[in-house]
Amino acid sequence: MRILRLAAAFGILLYGLAASPAADPLPSWNDGPAKTAIVNFVHVTTDPSSPQFVPAEQRLATFDQDGTLWVEHPIYTQFMFVLSQIAAMAPQHPAWKTTPPFKAVLDRDEAAMVKFTQKDLVTLLATTSTGISMDAFHASAKAWIAQARDRRWKRHYNELIYQPMLEAMRYLRANGYKTYIVTGGGQEFVRAFSMETYGVPVDQVIGSTGETKFVEKNGQTELMKLPKLQLNNDKSGKPEDIYLFIGRKPQAAFGNSTGDQQMLEYAQSSPGAHLEMLVLHDDATREYAYGPAAGLPNTKVGTFTQNLYDYAKANGWIVISMKNDWKRIFSFDP
Amino acid sequence: MRILRLAAAFGILLYGLAASPAADPLPSWNDGPAKTAIVNFVHVTTDPSSPQFVPAEQRLATFDQDGTLWVEHPIYTQFMFVLSQIAAMAPQHPAWKTTPPFKAVLDRDEAAMVKFTQKDLVTLLATTSTGISMDAFHASAKAWIAQARDRRWKRHYNELIYQPMLEAMRYLRANGYKTYIVTGGGQEFVRAFSMETYGVPVDQVIGSTGETKFVEKNGQTELMKLPKLQLNNDKSGKPEDIYLFIGRKPQAAFGNSTGDQQMLEYAQSSPGAHLEMLVLHDDATREYAYGPAAGLPNTKVGTFTQNLYDYAKANGWIVISMKNDWKRIFSFDP
Repeated sequence: MRILRLAAAFGILLYGLAASPAADPLPSWNDGPAKTAIVNFVHVTTDPSSPQFVPAEQRLATFDQDGTLWVEHPIYTQFMFVLSQIAAMAPQHPAWKTTPPFKAVLDRDEAAMVKFTQKDLVTLLATTSTGISMDAFHASAKAWIAQARDRRWKRHYNELIYQPMLEAMRYLRANGYKTYIVTGGGQEFVRAFSMETYGVPVDQVIGSTGETKFVEKNGQTELMKLPKLQLNNDKSGKPEDIYLFIGRKPQAAFGNSTGDQQMLEYAQSSPGAHLEMLVLHDDATREYAYGPAAGLPNTKVGTFTQNLYDYAKANGWIVISMKNDWKRIFSFDP
Repeated sequence: MRILRLAAAFGILLYGLAASPAADPLPSWNDGPAKTAIVNFVHVTTDPSSPQFVPAEQRLATFDQDGTLWVEHPIYTQFMFVLSQIAAMAPQHPAWKTTPPFKAVLDRDEAAMVKFTQKDLVTLLATTSTGISMDAFHASAKAWIAQARDRRWKRHYNELIYQPMLEAMRYLRANGYKTYIVTGGGQEFVRAFSMETYGVPVDQVIGSTGETKFVEKNGQTELMKLPKLQLNNDKSGKPEDIYLFIGRKPQAAFGNSTGDQQMLEYAQSSPGAHLEMLVLHDDATREYAYGPAAGLPNTKVGTFTQNLYDYAKANGWIVISMKNDWKRIFSFDP
């Protein structure tokens, strides 16, 4: 009896838990090929008896951000941050009121902003990246993300993250995968909220970067931002920078545009099991519809071309239909 | 009695182990200010009751390699690797037999090699970094380190690592510190042996890098080396790249030359407790003696100037005397 009581207290309860059907790790996904692909991938790479088993210290999954983890349409969130920085700097620069491209920003002239050239964007980025320390930039981005809200949902931008992708990240991490964000956006911008938003620490954020300059004075040090591109973490830059930072191939890669194709090709060349997924924005009701399957022209952001769609299908990559594969899109959806 | 026997089997033995005096985590260090500084630093940053406690996920220590973790005198180990690559390529380049700087390398003409200019070195590095994939380069470095031996000790180069520093790394890791190698040497070269030599995984190696080019063909991908400097991880480059890769300051930094000064300044500006240590090569018998306190002129490698020595003393940095602070230098020392 005593033995039974001890067993009941320490053993059977645990056994009972283990024997009950496991909770669904991906509750915001509808049953279908996308959900099945993720679950199967985790199973074959983490079951020690599987021929495709990957040791825990080698498990690596990389995620694009804009359009893959959070909303990118109609305008990249980081660009909204740059606009706010320009507005904050404007009082010290009275000439901007009449000088393009600053004038359009200060007038909130969306028709003009949509027509911004690459040169205009570089001018704005360089302006907000000069004479500021990385610490000050980080603090400024952190403060902005805590207060700014988008216009459609009236939510903080980091509430507009896709709940199914967050579940996929957590599910992979619970199975020993190290999850990295690999974004064409600015590394420092994303680091300002990656931990609280995605549970991804700053040293697992790879992004585009500008050069910095180390300055020491009286025992205090500062890293100043320089308006000079260092890493262009887009297209081929993604696998190049993954190797630079991590030194090996991911087994799983998630993206949504031509900027992610090379990262997915890199995962695809992993020996053993690998997983490549592309988010297709085909849900005009709950989010947006753009790209080939939506029958809509590509916009400036999130270029999911017909070529990429055909390439994905030919290579066994999984195209995630937001409309069909996702039960809910945001955590606040019913 | 049964209870006692159970206790003896499971409890008391463990208690007995815990109650015995802890084994010295730094057995190759002599008692003195350097050893005391390391032990005190670990104590005040990891004791939860300490006002200078650092949460485990923020504990970070960075180590230079050449002259700090392994022998750099009289010539950097990586240069010996480059020489071997040139020799291996020579049969395809008959003209090298009469063309400087290749001729000196192939003739093993040390008098000429000592006089190599920066331009000569760049020529040799560029030659061995063109038309080779990162994977092939990694394999080649791995094969070389497994067979090449130095001339003084007749040992593999990665046996010529300083046992006291290895103990310091392990002691820091056992106390929750993440240890990074931050080297002016090539990142890919050091990654080829960092795990087996130091227990440092490839994604915790920050070094100088060249650009790479991603190539995809028939489902296979390759990253090709390009003969173009990307990150010059020396002097100010060290804190700049630490921030790029990790996103925060180290609390502890270890170096041995002017190339490490900025990294130590960066650690020094950490809030709370911090530790800066410089290895002084003052042991001509067991290793080498060069630098200010040894009364010897600086050589091309490992520039520990009198200025740096004075700066260290003025700033409370710890200068490690190899002669006095280290009981043994190599694991094979008596």
